[in-house]
Amino acid sequence: MFFAFATAAFRVSKSTVPSPLPDYIESRCRLVDAALDRFLPPSPTRPPTIHKAMRYSIFAGGKRLRPIVCLAAAEACGGRVGDAMPLACAVECIHTYSLIHDDLPCMDDDDFRRGKPTSHKVFGEGVAVLAGDALLTFAFELVARAKGWPRYSHAALVKDAAIASGSLFLIAGQVADLEGEGKKTSHAQLRYIHERKTSALLTCSIRLGAMSANATTAQLRALTRFGYNLGMAFQVIDDILDATKTSAQLGKTAGKDAKAGKATYISILGMKRAEAEADRYTRAAISALKPFGNQAHRLHQLADYLLKRQN
Amino acid sequence: MFFAFATAAFRVSKSTVPSPLPDYIESRCRLVDAALDRFLPPSPTRPPTIHKAMRYSIFAGGKRLRPIVCLAAAEACGGRVGDAMPLACAVECIHTYSLIHDDLPCMDDDDFRRGKPTSHKVFGEGVAVLAGDALLTFAFELVARAKGWPRYSHAALVKDAAIASGSLFLIAGQVADLEGEGKKTSHAQLRYIHERKTSALLTCSIRLGAMSANATTAQLRALTRFGYNLGMAFQVIDDILDATKTSAQLGKTAGKDAKAGKATYISILGMKRAEAEADRYTRAAISALKPFGNQAHRLHQLADYLLKRQN
Repeated sequence: MFFAFATAAFRVSKSTVPSPLPDYIESRCRLVDAALDRFLPPSPTRPPTIHKAMRYSIFAGGKRLRPIVCLAAAEACGGRVGDAMPLACAVECIHTYSLIHDDLPCMDDDDFRRGKPTSHKVFGEGVAVLAGDALLTFAFELVARAKGWPRYSHAALVKDAAIASGSLFLIAGQVADLEGEGKKTSHAQLRYIHERKTSALLTCSIRLGAMSANATTAQLRALTRFGYNLGMAFQVIDDILDATKTSAQLGKTAGKDAKAGKATYISILGMKRAEAEADRYTRAAISALKPFGNQAHRLHQLADYLLKRQN
Repeated sequence: MFFAFATAAFRVSKSTVPSPLPDYIESRCRLVDAALDRFLPPSPTRPPTIHKAMRYSIFAGGKRLRPIVCLAAAEACGGRVGDAMPLACAVECIHTYSLIHDDLPCMDDDDFRRGKPTSHKVFGEGVAVLAGDALLTFAFELVARAKGWPRYSHAALVKDAAIASGSLFLIAGQVADLEGEGKKTSHAQLRYIHERKTSALLTCSIRLGAMSANATTAQLRALTRFGYNLGMAFQVIDDILDATKTSAQLGKTAGKDAKAGKATYISILGMKRAEAEADRYTRAAISALKPFGNQAHRLHQLADYLLKRQN
């Protein structure tokens, strides 16, 4: 599928040969990193502690998944990377703030993330809470710095970001996750958690990218459906990998959720039905891209890459 | 001064007799409370824990100082209360989030605020962190719901709120405060802390109110000066009251900062120079209102009331 698609993309490309996906991802990561570095206050800015802590977590090896799909959604709608960049950086700031707070001793109590000590281990809990707060606040400053359109005013952009990361979505997911530990969880409850913890911010990243490109209403609706299904497929596959791979293969502790008494798609549905669920979401995500044709080839490649990943 | 001013306000009033200040404050508090109740998701909204926790702290007896000055600033510029209300509620959400996080065991570790158990004592630390996060996020949703003007677009409103509550102001103040505990603090450092911890959000409240009323550039500049000086005077007077009144008179533990090894205006300047400082800021605040004449009489009254308070 991946290679068939890559060949198709190559065939219809008009003037330039599209770079292979890993090169594309790497160059996008570099662009996003450079933009984050330019946007964030420099480390020595008074008080240095908070700016060091903000940068420590932002530059702690994140895969930049949300900014990359944000930029690719903008491209799919014929927009410019520069117009989407403040929004791409904003969603990365929101994602990073949520990780810093989730890792706190009073939440998931994680000492390491991607092999590096978590914010509260390096800066202490007080500064970690404030670094999360500061990144969340800064995200909205970045949204305000983006380009607005008559159809997608700053009010619309801010509302989208605030709702996706607020008490009805991102935070609702974390609360439900905290409350679900050690309790019997139904399939519907698990879906509720992942729609909020994973899918909402991923969908928002894609929507903001589309909005920065002045997407039509139909384009925005299609990309919202793509984002939702991509996020859900991503999460089911995460659970499958967590249950089938070793810690060494994953680059993180395998089976952690199961050990913490958290429900997973495997514990609730079993492996076979979980795989069918992943397949269903994947097909729904890919089918949402149809109206875009070749313009969405990067989104298509990214979806394929994420859904066939081995770690 | 207070009565002389009240009489003057009475004399120039055209059609209606202005209500006495306590009645004005009470009626504004009722309006703000009703708006917050209308804006915030109802307690049973899923997941109820987070919405209960958000409402618990929002309705825990706050004096609504920031929303009241926000609305009064809008009035001073000829604006409407309804246009300023989402912004007034937004600054109250930001203020409340900052209190919830400041009270956490990893920060100031306070079990009570205004005689009621703090959020983490009622809901646990994890939910308290998330309730603060949710209120901060919701504040930006409210800013996005306010009325915009060509001169004061939503981008400008969001930027103002994000900068005042971000790593250069509100959060910078909290970091400097945390780091200053038990250390020798200079007058300049203490001013830096209070410019950020107290004055920045108060000034922002006033600026957002003025912006909601489509203030002229000169009006916005004058009210910014008013807000800064009001905030600083407010803080110096807080320190004076803390050093001279009993806990019973204050309705909170007196001398708490001094006991925690935190610098105060009294410990650094002594009582006499602290009083002179309060006087200087107060006069600067009042003088900033001059261009508004009687249109700013509520702001003038509020400043007088805050600066002559006994608790």
